[in-house]
Amino acid sequence: MMSKQRYPAFIKWPSAVVILLMIVTAGAGSEQTVDRPFLREMERIRSIGLSEEYAFDILKRLTALGPRLTASPQAAAAVDLMAREMEDLGFENVRLEPVTVGRWVRGDREEARIVHSSQIGMQSLAVCALGGSVPTPPGGMTAPVVEVRSFDELHDMGNRIRGKIVFFNRPMDRTIMESFSAYGAAAEHRVRGAAEAARYGAAAVLVRSLTFRLNDHPHTGLLRYDEDGPRIPAAAVSTLGAEMLSALLKKEADVRVFLELTCETLSPVVSHNLIGEIRGSEFPEEIILVGGHLDSWDLGTGAHDDGAGCVQSIEVLRLIKKAGLVPRRTIRAVLFMDEEFGGTGGRAYAAAHGRKGERHLAAMESDRGGFLPIGIGAGADPNLVEKLRKLDHLWSPLGIHWVRTGGGGVDIAPLGEQGTHLMSVMPDAHRYFDVHHSALDVLDAVHPRELELGAVVMAVLAFILAQEGV
Amino acid sequence: MMSKQRYPAFIKWPSAVVILLMIVTAGAGSEQTVDRPFLREMERIRSIGLSEEYAFDILKRLTALGPRLTASPQAAAAVDLMAREMEDLGFENVRLEPVTVGRWVRGDREEARIVHSSQIGMQSLAVCALGGSVPTPPGGMTAPVVEVRSFDELHDMGNRIRGKIVFFNRPMDRTIMESFSAYGAAAEHRVRGAAEAARYGAAAVLVRSLTFRLNDHPHTGLLRYDEDGPRIPAAAVSTLGAEMLSALLKKEADVRVFLELTCETLSPVVSHNLIGEIRGSEFPEEIILVGGHLDSWDLGTGAHDDGAGCVQSIEVLRLIKKAGLVPRRTIRAVLFMDEEFGGTGGRAYAAAHGRKGERHLAAMESDRGGFLPIGIGAGADPNLVEKLRKLDHLWSPLGIHWVRTGGGGVDIAPLGEQGTHLMSVMPDAHRYFDVHHSALDVLDAVHPRELELGAVVMAVLAFILAQEGV
Repeated sequence: MMSKQRYPAFIKWPSAVVILLMIVTAGAGSEQTVDRPFLREMERIRSIGLSEEYAFDILKRLTALGPRLTASPQAAAAVDLMAREMEDLGFENVRLEPVTVGRWVRGDREEARIVHSSQIGMQSLAVCALGGSVPTPPGGMTAPVVEVRSFDELHDMGNRIRGKIVFFNRPMDRTIMESFSAYGAAAEHRVRGAAEAARYGAAAVLVRSLTFRLNDHPHTGLLRYDEDGPRIPAAAVSTLGAEMLSALLKKEADVRVFLELTCETLSPVVSHNLIGEIRGSEFPEEIILVGGHLDSWDLGTGAHDDGAGCVQSIEVLRLIKKAGLVPRRTIRAVLFMDEEFGGTGGRAYAAAHGRKGERHLAAMESDRGGFLPIGIGAGADPNLVEKLRKLDHLWSPLGIHWVRTGGGGVDIAPLGEQGTHLMSVMPDAHRYFDVHHSALDVLDAVHPRELELGAVVMAVLAFILAQEGV
Repeated sequence: MMSKQRYPAFIKWPSAVVILLMIVTAGAGSEQTVDRPFLREMERIRSIGLSEEYAFDILKRLTALGPRLTASPQAAAAVDLMAREMEDLGFENVRLEPVTVGRWVRGDREEARIVHSSQIGMQSLAVCALGGSVPTPPGGMTAPVVEVRSFDELHDMGNRIRGKIVFFNRPMDRTIMESFSAYGAAAEHRVRGAAEAARYGAAAVLVRSLTFRLNDHPHTGLLRYDEDGPRIPAAAVSTLGAEMLSALLKKEADVRVFLELTCETLSPVVSHNLIGEIRGSEFPEEIILVGGHLDSWDLGTGAHDDGAGCVQSIEVLRLIKKAGLVPRRTIRAVLFMDEEFGGTGGRAYAAAHGRKGERHLAAMESDRGGFLPIGIGAGADPNLVEKLRKLDHLWSPLGIHWVRTGGGGVDIAPLGEQGTHLMSVMPDAHRYFDVHHSALDVLDAVHPRELELGAVVMAVLAFILAQEGV
């Protein structure tokens, strides 16, 4: 794996990059050319990546462990497996850092069915408990269903929803191009629906799954109860189930649904963030961080969310090492625990490292799926964005069409509060919510070449930052 | 479907576009803004498309007919089905134009297996006849295999390949970013391998399938014999089959393969190009053509190649009609027959229409799969490319990141010789050769939103050209 010996010429790297940066800083506009040796070496990263597609290989082994719900045995096994992978690849300072995380388990049964309707016989609905939900009473519960499309509608109904199952049926708006925006606009019902409905005495909530696709896969995700409010069971229903239920409710007033959820919250456990790095040759205490989160939801195997980000982060370091490049600053891969259930891993990492005198110059998180990379969210500093934008000769051959302000992620947000530049390589996201938080988020949904290209672009960006700082 | 009544304000269109063009022609650089009403109406096309995803709906019905090999009954059924679709959608001048096309059939059996090897027992190889191949002798043939990676190697071996099966084993180069370039570089063995090997008396050829992926799906495609040369059977072998055979040949010299192909060439039949249009309100004789080819290979159902291009072409006209827009020039959808087996449909169309005094200003062909559109190949005229490039405010919200010279296709190439501007909306192509010409090219491989976005971008481009000419 180590191949520095085979590429002695790469020792010249820093000076080549200085030339590059001089060109960039001179602000010659879009006409400047990137230093040729530098360009060639970045092309080498691409060639290694595309010919080996090693990120997919890691992902195959990671997803074979099963889902990696925070605090689950599989999550612990994933930490072990990825730690061994980092060591096998010769990363330096491979280590675990403890994080205390909450444990919620789905239990062995979750069911819903329409049980009272003159239009339709008994009809099962594809549901899954939302993450953090309390269970139904043992043996389940049956209640009339009332449909709402917004919190305004909910508040207008007020106490009329008492004892009922509130059915939040707001679809993601397909006419919004940015799927993350469409998701963000619709997600509040999943996150806050149970808390809001509980205030009026609702018995439970069903929330339409957050996806553009019409099918029978429910999509889970975290909910948040009020700290001191009542807690009622909450489940996502598949989009086809939501359509059926909604159509039925238009025809008859008294539709009842049976719901049973056996999920429960157990005692917190100690889990871990996983860290490995290539130590910087000149400024080892200055860190360029690449990361993803190792925990996943439990319906699929978290292949895109966020197995992809984890294996890409490892692949970034592997590509740089295999290309024989020695960064001036430390490039560190961090696989965070517990993004999905509250972000404790990201906070723990920032708190622990804030005390060590390390400087995290930049952090990029890959948590938007392992799809084709199309752009770079280069942080919030317009100067840095502008500098990176001028490296068009590097980005264009990688299929990267834009560099804009933006980027970040739940796990690195706490670093941002300490002044770290937060970035992301941005993948195409049109297919992301097809699989997100559902049983469809499995290896088969990930394309080896797309996944690898994401890692390649991250590696090029990380290496530039490691050489030149921010 | 027709909704002009509901959008009376759209009668103002032409003047809005004149303003737009004035801005563009003024050459204000990348800072100019696109006329707001125009932008809004193009957004309406996008909204209709993304919310309805109707292109996928047509594709579902088209692919349900089965594969559409040129001259097959299913190809004829596809012409009928799409003609009815055009009429149901209210297209004008829906008509068929006859094309005489060759007929080749795969027959009921194609098999290959390794039958002589000390390393491995009898082992089947996943193969398929290349399009146009002659059959093996009845009952099949068995011959020693010799592997080559290039025509140079073949020519060096010369008469030593007599009586043998030549195994062309050049993989597509994964390090090439543009998959069409990687395909183009490797395709000569499929197209010309049989003809070249036959000169030295080879018994048959096996050609490694053209895909980046390692699996057991063979990928077919056209071969070309020398007009007056010997014709030998030719089959594609899956990439995994090729790897196995190659590994075996490194270990032992005398590996023999049994090959049986029952394909044959039958008498030509009369088939059809299918045409439908929205007649231009001011210059009906000036044509903006959008098209794809209705024939496909016979292993899958031609969902990407080129069902996608056909349904997108229909969807372009449907979107423009549904948005209530009336183009000044005629926008015509042409579904060509026989792209895969020689391009007779494209030549027939150009010849027939060359006689009618119509002027084809621009033609865009969609034949690169129904994947996410990322750019526009805007033809060969730098002035037109530059004009379209300046409409960044239109392209950017559609996820279109570049406008460059380029574009075209087999079916519209003959129009290019008559002076028509040849264009293409360019989709991401990283996944195209996973399915191309194989049993994997089925509906399931097409993403409804990606497919629709391609149609939306084509519709916007076609409408601009229809209003402003070239």
